Amino acid sequence: MTLPRIDHTHEPSLTSWVASANGHADFPIQNLPLGVFSPQGAQPRIGVAIGDSVLDLAAIASLLPEAMQPAAGQSSLNALFALPPEDRTLLRRRLSQLLSDEAHRRDVETALHPLSEVTLHLPARIGDYTDFYVGIHHATNVGKLFRPDNPLLPNYKYVPIGYHGRASSVRPSGEPVVRPRGQRKAPNADVPVFEPSARLDYELELGIWVAQGNALGTTIPIGEASEHIAGLSLLNDWSARDLQAWEYQPLGPFLAKNFHTTISPWVVTAEALAPYRIAQPARPEGDPAPLPYLLDAQDQAQGALSLTLSVWLSSAKMREEGRAPLRLSQGPASNMYWTLAQIVAHHASGGCNLNPGDLLGTGTISGPTPDSYGSLLEITEGGKNPFTLPTGETRSFLQDGDEISITASAHAPGRASIGFGECRAVILATPA
Amino acid sequence: MTLPRIDHTHEPSLTSWVASANGHADFPIQNLPLGVFSPQGAQPRIGVAIGDSVLDLAAIASLLPEAMQPAAGQSSLNALFALPPEDRTLLRRRLSQLLSDEAHRRDVETALHPLSEVTLHLPARIGDYTDFYVGIHHATNVGKLFRPDNPLLPNYKYVPIGYHGRASSVRPSGEPVVRPRGQRKAPNADVPVFEPSARLDYELELGIWVAQGNALGTTIPIGEASEHIAGLSLLNDWSARDLQAWEYQPLGPFLAKNFHTTISPWVVTAEALAPYRIAQPARPEGDPAPLPYLLDAQDQAQGALSLTLSVWLSSAKMREEGRAPLRLSQGPASNMYWTLAQIVAHHASGGCNLNPGDLLGTGTISGPTPDSYGSLLEITEGGKNPFTLPTGETRSFLQDGDEISITASAHAPGRASIGFGECRAVILATPA
Repeated sequence: MTLPRIDHTHEPSLTSWVASANGHADFPIQNLPLGVFSPQGAQPRIGVAIGDSVLDLAAIASLLPEAMQPAAGQSSLNALFALPPEDRTLLRRRLSQLLSDEAHRRDVETALHPLSEVTLHLPARIGDYTDFYVGIHHATNVGKLFRPDNPLLPNYKYVPIGYHGRASSVRPSGEPVVRPRGQRKAPNADVPVFEPSARLDYELELGIWVAQGNALGTTIPIGEASEHIAGLSLLNDWSARDLQAWEYQPLGPFLAKNFHTTISPWVVTAEALAPYRIAQPARPEGDPAPLPYLLDAQDQAQGALSLTLSVWLSSAKMREEGRAPLRLSQGPASNMYWTLAQIVAHHASGGCNLNPGDLLGTGTISGPTPDSYGSLLEITEGGKNPFTLPTGETRSFLQDGDEISITASAHAPGRASIGFGECRAVILATPA
Repeated sequence: MTLPRIDHTHEPSLTSWVASANGHADFPIQNLPLGVFSPQGAQPRIGVAIGDSVLDLAAIASLLPEAMQPAAGQSSLNALFALPPEDRTLLRRRLSQLLSDEAHRRDVETALHPLSEVTLHLPARIGDYTDFYVGIHHATNVGKLFRPDNPLLPNYKYVPIGYHGRASSVRPSGEPVVRPRGQRKAPNADVPVFEPSARLDYELELGIWVAQGNALGTTIPIGEASEHIAGLSLLNDWSARDLQAWEYQPLGPFLAKNFHTTISPWVVTAEALAPYRIAQPARPEGDPAPLPYLLDAQDQAQGALSLTLSVWLSSAKMREEGRAPLRLSQGPASNMYWTLAQIVAHHASGGCNLNPGDLLGTGTISGPTPDSYGSLLEITEGGKNPFTLPTGETRSFLQDGDEISITASAHAPGRASIGFGECRAVILATPA
């Protein structure tokens, strides 16, 4: 099969015969995110979000290039992620054609389901989940709470700091989060207590879905790393700060993080995000250059994304009173000190094998000012400065019934914006 | 099905019609460990080690209790691990009967393969891998290298410290380990270099296989935790000390550990280990009692194991010269500050969901004296005190071509000892 010379999926003015897609904030035809859904009572299958609908990929498999048909019929995206990047591009072009060209409407329309009537699942079986720490303002803000004069540790500007997380507790948007019990010790107490966390927090992150992986003992060179990224979701790395403070030395966060991680269920593909790529911001003067294994000219020129991230809070009382969610922060994803490609290349640099469907969190993405901080730990300075909700309630950390939602929007001049859908969950009380 | 009142699998003098089993150091009929193997050129299937042979469970499925037949026919142990503990006990009793009673010989003998002619695989699909830090002498020895006056952090005697590891790079005994490249910074250097690790080490651990799990948001009470353990393997948590020292703050070890983890491929079941249970050693005077969620009288009375662990080194030159491996250390598994049940109960105590086939490392098990230290970091005091091999070579950390093997033996008065088989791997040079 020869690649068409003109990639009409990059046509900025393209419209769809699915009317709700045109002008849709998240899912215009320029997006075409992949996910896994169940129509009412049916088995999970792969779908593509288009406007207010989802297209059942298995139902139209015969219209797809033959190489993709087996992967399109699965109940998770792992096999699609494992395809060569050229095949993923071909799939996108074909979907764009099927959903824009009126001639295909008759064959495709019957495979559409209203998004409001389906259940969304995790898009892939997550083999391993890793969480990074590339939001430099977050690392600085958190470091200041412990080391006011020297917030960033000496390794930060050399190493894309990361640690392994818990894959089993990653859940799609909408599943409630049970407040964890755990050990915490008050600064002046002699001994810890085992109680529900009193300092429950969210963390605003992006999740990277690994495409083709690498064999154990081999690496992924920085120049090839972006081809190993299938796409992105939004990610909320729920964190129990009191549990974390007591348990994390010397081996890092554990129960403070592994009780739940929420992701937006749609994978906005690397191909869809290509038009929104921008240069990685220059490092501040005096910062070291990345070591050669993390440095690639093309990645520096277009390794960041023009993406605006927002976090919203609504308390149970706010919802009872019919109030809109309160925006807690808004900021650009370019506040990442390392690019997505650098994260992937570093992860594999010692020979660790990545697999299709692995999930890599970026770490909390905060901006330089409080209106763009990505966690309550930062917004309330460790709980010292509570803020007031429209109901008159105050918050330093999350209360039972609070709902956190993360949204995002990618922008490029002269082109429709695309979004991610919802990354949302409500806090439930610890069971007795 | 009614449980027989007399459990003849605990009959200490039981013998097998498989002649090599009787007096076998690892796999007498008192053991019956489960694993996954391939006869030459065939697909992986579940087997039971007996003497110098492996019994193909799928081939004798019709002789097993009906409830176990589907699980016995799988290519991994996950489904067997997911059975209720009563069913796992029934399976053991039936296998013991089939392999001891001469009347079954004709039906079973054709399903035996010589162990020397099969390939052994990972026993289960590992959903998540977690590594703990319960070897108190190890934690003290490592702590001393950083904080001579205060080696143990204040949380150690309250929290079974653990962190998430990498599931994808866990490999069965025999697969070589590629020396990782990574960032390391010499104490007096201004900047790090990206080079092959110069301080490659092993860590002697036990691996716990999770049986039935728990749903997200629920816990596993300490009194039930031992029923959630399917069995144990030996585990070598290969560690690049120079990479670890530079990368590990503030979120813990990452690339220093995730390049490879070796396990012995046989799962010595909880039922097989039952006769070797002993009381958890009393805590030193002045140590706090475990918090109530980690304290169970029965677990304290029989939560430890009478198990001797040994580590062996052979260099390439030693093997060329036909020399026997050098024993680096030997010590009891009772040097664990927390029991296996406490590890499981703590892991789930905040609502994190465990799944059948999850793997939990204990952390390095060292004794109080150098002849029982479980890593080179401890034996050579961070490389300061190299030792000499029978060839005249010296070692502070591992060289290419070095092979590390871990073995273990469980003992009980008047009863055959049982072992784990090999947990072995050789170090390969970093590819150019």
